[in-house]
Amino acid sequence: MAIPTTPPSGFRDFLPDAAAVRAHAAEVIAGVYRSFGFQRIATSAFEDLAVLLGKGGGENEKLIFKVMRRGEQLEKAKAAGEELADMGLRFDLTVPLARYYSKYGSTLPHPFKAFQLGPVWRAERAQKGRFREFWQCDADVIGSDAWHCEVEVISALVTAVTRLGVEHPRVLINDRSLVYALLEQAGVEPDRRLAACVILDKLDKLERGQVLAELTALVGEPAARSLEASLLAEAPDLALLRAAAPAAVDRLEKIVAALRALSAKPESFVLQPSLMRGFDYYTGPVFELHHPSLSSSLGGGGRYDRLTEKFGGQPVPACGGSIGFERLLLILEESGQAPGTSAPDAVVTVFSEELRLPSLQLAARLRAAGLAIDVYPGSGKLKAQFKYADQKKAAHCLVLGPDEAAQGLVKVKEMKTGAEEAVKVDELAARLRR
Amino acid sequence: MAIPTTPPSGFRDFLPDAAAVRAHAAEVIAGVYRSFGFQRIATSAFEDLAVLLGKGGGENEKLIFKVMRRGEQLEKAKAAGEELADMGLRFDLTVPLARYYSKYGSTLPHPFKAFQLGPVWRAERAQKGRFREFWQCDADVIGSDAWHCEVEVISALVTAVTRLGVEHPRVLINDRSLVYALLEQAGVEPDRRLAACVILDKLDKLERGQVLAELTALVGEPAARSLEASLLAEAPDLALLRAAAPAAVDRLEKIVAALRALSAKPESFVLQPSLMRGFDYYTGPVFELHHPSLSSSLGGGGRYDRLTEKFGGQPVPACGGSIGFERLLLILEESGQAPGTSAPDAVVTVFSEELRLPSLQLAARLRAAGLAIDVYPGSGKLKAQFKYADQKKAAHCLVLGPDEAAQGLVKVKEMKTGAEEAVKVDELAARLRR
Repeated sequence: MAIPTTPPSGFRDFLPDAAAVRAHAAEVIAGVYRSFGFQRIATSAFEDLAVLLGKGGGENEKLIFKVMRRGEQLEKAKAAGEELADMGLRFDLTVPLARYYSKYGSTLPHPFKAFQLGPVWRAERAQKGRFREFWQCDADVIGSDAWHCEVEVISALVTAVTRLGVEHPRVLINDRSLVYALLEQAGVEPDRRLAACVILDKLDKLERGQVLAELTALVGEPAARSLEASLLAEAPDLALLRAAAPAAVDRLEKIVAALRALSAKPESFVLQPSLMRGFDYYTGPVFELHHPSLSSSLGGGGRYDRLTEKFGGQPVPACGGSIGFERLLLILEESGQAPGTSAPDAVVTVFSEELRLPSLQLAARLRAAGLAIDVYPGSGKLKAQFKYADQKKAAHCLVLGPDEAAQGLVKVKEMKTGAEEAVKVDELAARLRR
Repeated sequence: MAIPTTPPSGFRDFLPDAAAVRAHAAEVIAGVYRSFGFQRIATSAFEDLAVLLGKGGGENEKLIFKVMRRGEQLEKAKAAGEELADMGLRFDLTVPLARYYSKYGSTLPHPFKAFQLGPVWRAERAQKGRFREFWQCDADVIGSDAWHCEVEVISALVTAVTRLGVEHPRVLINDRSLVYALLEQAGVEPDRRLAACVILDKLDKLERGQVLAELTALVGEPAARSLEASLLAEAPDLALLRAAAPAAVDRLEKIVAALRALSAKPESFVLQPSLMRGFDYYTGPVFELHHPSLSSSLGGGGRYDRLTEKFGGQPVPACGGSIGFERLLLILEESGQAPGTSAPDAVVTVFSEELRLPSLQLAARLRAAGLAIDVYPGSGKLKAQFKYADQKKAAHCLVLGPDEAAQGLVKVKEMKTGAEEAVKVDELAARLRR
């Protein structure tokens, strides 16, 4: 029986071109986050199960890949009928950030602007576009409730994706407390408000009429009509919203106004009162990035103020956002103009045993000039070496034969056209850069 | 009970400065590997247990962090008394590379020059300087037995570490087949040769006399005296070595000569006939990078020709090397001049509610000019904002007060000296770059 050569279900390998694009995208995102004053952090891939489960355990437990105890500890746990795992893989970057800030917060700048890029692992059923290992790209401000933190986080996310050549996303912005206030104002019973939020959250999947029908069934016609005017209006009625939650609307308006003032695409930033952004830990403003070629969001985030509570700390105001890295990669691949390349600038051929060292020396000289230069990693016919240069998608092949070597020349073959030209070694780097 | 805030034993978090240095080092290494024509690949963190265990299982099994089956599968396995884990974390990047090449080899350039950077996980007991999660930085050439592959791999490794400002390492080079030939020639019985290799491998830990004594005890005095002259000589006697293994020595000499010809430090490359580089899968030439501040090697590698066999493929000639990333980081940290920084070029203060948007706009303008600009993520006294700029190790603080804003000026505060100067907004980017 041969051993399998495919990665486990839901896991992926990346061929050179894809790996180059991913690495390039991660570098660009990190560079943009850094240019906004966020500092890179890195946390361990494994966490104690208690950290991942939190106090409650609950829904997260199903997401966690658990790591088995080892050796004696495993035998003991088996004998005692106890938990056989002692650690688990992180399923997001937010729980580790909370642990990190709880531990190191007093030694960090205050407020703390952090970013982390890296893989997370989720024990979900693998399906098209959903993986069990995928990257997250988080940027967070911890320890401040200033409204311009949201502006900086959203700007950083938008700048990162547009820097990669992706069309400017549409950014939907809301505040959850506005939704709660409107539900109360519409007279929705407290015990039906969560269910109403679940229905509102379907607005990007269902038609507006369908959402309204579901709301009507849940809260009755008068309340549903009130919500239609406040939450579901095509163009939000600001006076109506402000009457329900003046502080939240004031804050939202400042955030949206600043984002518009800072952007070349001011119309991309939209207040959408029905936006809930799922049901996780957000407590105030929330936002989502949308791109025309994606049915789900390209990223998002919001404000969450109960971050470090579970580690026994004081509640700390915080706000953060994340780019959906895998979805971003989908867009980059589909656009066919994915930046980042695995191709060298040129492949140097190895003409003969005698010319092997001169070929290596030529490559060293061009590398020192900042070029990416491959040397054919073998020996043999030039035809095979040209084929290799094609496979590497090199723009040029550099042939250093005995005649060229004797005259201080190199034959430059343009791989696209097949055109050949003898170039002086001194002029070669400049020629390849053209 | 509060939940723990430290990562599990043997795992690490990285504070911003350390995380910045690590990311920078990884980028530089990747850039150098790429400039040598190696193409980045990425493999999954999880592997099927069968891939990690190989056909034999054996020693590797203890290294593997196993991932528990989930849900029904776990219950079934428990009931049947079967293996409770279905996957494991990769413990190196070589086994995944072998799987990768077995699966995708026919679609890849031939020969294939690959590199991969990333974390691996080992279930070893944590101790000082040994971690259970650490990075590896591998570069490999698969499908070629040309001797200049070794030259390219070794050059790439040395270029990468020196590009980071690390002193040029001493590179020891050998060929295992030379050791085997010398043992045979000395008349060491076949069943004692492995034990003799184990003793030779201690040469970097023990004194020469001690190694010789152990050898004498194992193989008798005449054989030990022969090995003293061939394997343990301070300056290798090339004639003696060539007589034992002409092909291996010829190849080694070409490799060393090319490395010297290509290097500004030719004396760094040394043929050391006793070098074994452990007892893993190497089959021919081996090499190690040594740095004066490390007791163990900074990296190494060699030729291995049985890479893809366990996946049912033909044997493929291959050669690769790896930089000890964690040890490299130790050197960078100890040198006190670690490149890579988490500091922004400047922090823009937030003077008042009215000046919040102008501060954000100033930052956006400077970022567009390529600078890393933080905006104080809060509001409040300037004193706290200056303290924040200090904590961020920013070189400058930019104060935009009402007077400055009215005149198109910004007050630039040098954080080191405290000196302040009013600068025109138009000239600010150039001023900060000085």
